[in-house]
Amino acid sequence: MSETKALASYIVSNRWDDVPDDVRHEAKRALINYVGCAIGGSPHSAVTTAIRALGPFSGERTASVLGRAERLDPLHASLMNGISSHVEDYDDTTPKNYSHTSSPVASALFAYASANRVRGRDFVEAFILGFEAASRVGNTVYPSHYDVGWHMTGTIGVFGAAAAIGRLIGLSSQEMVWALGLAATQSAGLREMFGSMGKAFHPGRSAQNGYAAALLAQAGFTAGERGIEGSRGFAHVMAASRDLSKITTRLGVDFDLRDNTYKPFPCGIVNHPTIDGCIQIHDEERPDPASIVAVRLRVAPLVMDLCNQQNITKGLQGKFSVYHGAAVGLVRGKAGLREYTDEAVNDPQVKRVREAATAVGDPAVTEDQSRIEVELAGGRRLTRFVEQSLGNIHRPLTDRQLEEKFRDQAALVLPAQDVESLIHLCWRIDQLDEVGDLVTAALPPQVRLKADTTVPGVARQQVT
Amino acid sequence: MSETKALASYIVSNRWDDVPDDVRHEAKRALINYVGCAIGGSPHSAVTTAIRALGPFSGERTASVLGRAERLDPLHASLMNGISSHVEDYDDTTPKNYSHTSSPVASALFAYASANRVRGRDFVEAFILGFEAASRVGNTVYPSHYDVGWHMTGTIGVFGAAAAIGRLIGLSSQEMVWALGLAATQSAGLREMFGSMGKAFHPGRSAQNGYAAALLAQAGFTAGERGIEGSRGFAHVMAASRDLSKITTRLGVDFDLRDNTYKPFPCGIVNHPTIDGCIQIHDEERPDPASIVAVRLRVAPLVMDLCNQQNITKGLQGKFSVYHGAAVGLVRGKAGLREYTDEAVNDPQVKRVREAATAVGDPAVTEDQSRIEVELAGGRRLTRFVEQSLGNIHRPLTDRQLEEKFRDQAALVLPAQDVESLIHLCWRIDQLDEVGDLVTAALPPQVRLKADTTVPGVARQQVT
Repeated sequence: MSETKALASYIVSNRWDDVPDDVRHEAKRALINYVGCAIGGSPHSAVTTAIRALGPFSGERTASVLGRAERLDPLHASLMNGISSHVEDYDDTTPKNYSHTSSPVASALFAYASANRVRGRDFVEAFILGFEAASRVGNTVYPSHYDVGWHMTGTIGVFGAAAAIGRLIGLSSQEMVWALGLAATQSAGLREMFGSMGKAFHPGRSAQNGYAAALLAQAGFTAGERGIEGSRGFAHVMAASRDLSKITTRLGVDFDLRDNTYKPFPCGIVNHPTIDGCIQIHDEERPDPASIVAVRLRVAPLVMDLCNQQNITKGLQGKFSVYHGAAVGLVRGKAGLREYTDEAVNDPQVKRVREAATAVGDPAVTEDQSRIEVELAGGRRLTRFVEQSLGNIHRPLTDRQLEEKFRDQAALVLPAQDVESLIHLCWRIDQLDEVGDLVTAALPPQVRLKADTTVPGVARQQVT
Repeated sequence: MSETKALASYIVSNRWDDVPDDVRHEAKRALINYVGCAIGGSPHSAVTTAIRALGPFSGERTASVLGRAERLDPLHASLMNGISSHVEDYDDTTPKNYSHTSSPVASALFAYASANRVRGRDFVEAFILGFEAASRVGNTVYPSHYDVGWHMTGTIGVFGAAAAIGRLIGLSSQEMVWALGLAATQSAGLREMFGSMGKAFHPGRSAQNGYAAALLAQAGFTAGERGIEGSRGFAHVMAASRDLSKITTRLGVDFDLRDNTYKPFPCGIVNHPTIDGCIQIHDEERPDPASIVAVRLRVAPLVMDLCNQQNITKGLQGKFSVYHGAAVGLVRGKAGLREYTDEAVNDPQVKRVREAATAVGDPAVTEDQSRIEVELAGGRRLTRFVEQSLGNIHRPLTDRQLEEKFRDQAALVLPAQDVESLIHLCWRIDQLDEVGDLVTAALPPQVRLKADTTVPGVARQQVT
């Protein structure tokens, strides 16, 4: 059987009971991380700009965008969810292929579930299958596909969205083959967009296009039958080398979700071990920030190439400053979205500690490591060696740490008590009668208020 | 200046007076050919299926689809125009890069013009600039880009649609750079889709995505500044070799429209010289079809590989039968869409002549040539050697032949007198006060009737 057919057949015929418990739990971890990122990114100007440009072209406004007041049709809502969940570069990473797979898959699914009645169990299963489809397509072409310049979150995300939505709308095996083919022929996204809004556009457009692929296939819009493995298909055209066996090997047994990782800090990953160690010092030693006279870092040489900015005034610059990361870790004991604002960068205490920091590149220090020495007034020295950075596959965020990350982001849009209820709903997502209830809980309070009183065009619609 | 910037700057600053007369005329030839193909393809099930799947997601229905009664938002109308104009494989070809460039560019433009007031001169200028942008991007990466398996009509069309719509909505140079970047990062379309509806989806999605790129850029959605030439941009990622100088060399002086060609027959191009010669025999010798006892063809060996089907029953098979092409040429004196229906393939007279035909592959005969001998009852022999096939760059269709091709397609949807008025409007497009009038004339008569009596939601809307 061809790879496209085998994958399609797996997606349409999987049963909930076939999914191991640990994979179900990891799916919930991925989803709580996703929802937090989507809400946290939702006020970003990239989202506002995209809604301003394309909102006027929205169809019937039956869907919601996580964290936003505007309503859109489900395809446009998929696009906006994708932009918001990726725009802070804070979403998950599958180290096997360095993709951020949850964003395109979950963006389409939450848009769908905001406009249609979907049981939680079906939702989580569709997410697991869509994630697996996208990640396996990615494994097939990684690394040559990534190395040449494709942004995999875009190029493979479209398969995941097609698979997930196709599963929910009940595609046949033949229709799923077409949906994957229509996904393949829309696969796009260039790394040249990094540093612009175009980067976050990728998972959004993937979500929207994969969703549309499933709808087209359901209506009988045909595609090539060998979209993934054909001689003019995705894997051959878009990668210099490929291993198609990665589509089918141990399909339904191994799950890439098991290898998924979550960033603890919204900045360049090479800064993470330093921030991690500084937060440890803050939490355990509680040094008075005013007493810090020097911070000495020994880091991987790559850090000095990428993140050697000290005289900074903008939040975005903070993401590329290992000194800023150390300073917020030591002063505030955290490094969430609010530690990368202009305000935080110009906070006098943070600024003073940042300017007291020095760093040396040391080839003996790996990119997951950092060696930190903090000197206090009076000469006392606090030291820390971070061997594995928090958030990598060997030191994953705990469920509680994921919740803390969630709180930090969701608080930008939601009142504190609403954040707690939403966390509770996320952990229970597989038991919900209707995932739309979770989406409603992830909207700004003024919108939910309106929905409760059934203002026309705001209340979520039933499936017809 | 970078190639993307140079191209953007050219597109936004060109003046109508800068376009030579012969290019203006060729643009009108390309547009009359396009409109005929769009109307002729509009009843195709690929269009009906796509409207069924995505029509429910349409925004405000301010736009028309050429040849169709349904109204959609302009982005969805762009998609449908692109599908219909390419689905019969009857649209134009730029032999420099073997792309069908008019379809994605004009599909977006006519959708735009059906919903917004656009002067004919501005429309034609935007078409010329969009065509040139797409074709030059294509020249840069041809042939390696095509050879690996990209369907260039999709991959380069998105640049053309972005350029054309961006020009009409008055993007600044910076915004046009973003529009081209957002086009680059949506560039997609695999040749694996050939033989399915997915092929015609490519120019449609390109038109829609290029249009959206222009809207996003106008709103301030940013993209990488070097979408075409950057080290992770279109040309490097999507082609094994490239010549970026083809973007800028003699820009504004050379126009690829001058090399554009138009298919005289809706079938595999290798059959064209045989059909051409048989129509010449029909027109000049008027043989009684009943008297034909044998048809002997000497053709390029490739014809025997691709089009050696004689026992056929379906219209689609006729496209791959050199015998059928010879038969309809001799019996009907034409080979339009109606000669490739199931009815035509099973027409007893056509069938008899087809079965009387034999063919031999001859390496001395080029793919533009055919040597034909028709033997009549009584022994008379009619012979013809076609040296250059009608429709190639050395024997282009005349304006009258383009009109005849147009009539053949438009008659599927429009009454004869309406076809003649529409032809007249197409030749005058650059003088129209409002191109929407031409779109209205290209709709089924029952829709136009409604529009005249201003039934809500059908009459074309003014720009607001």
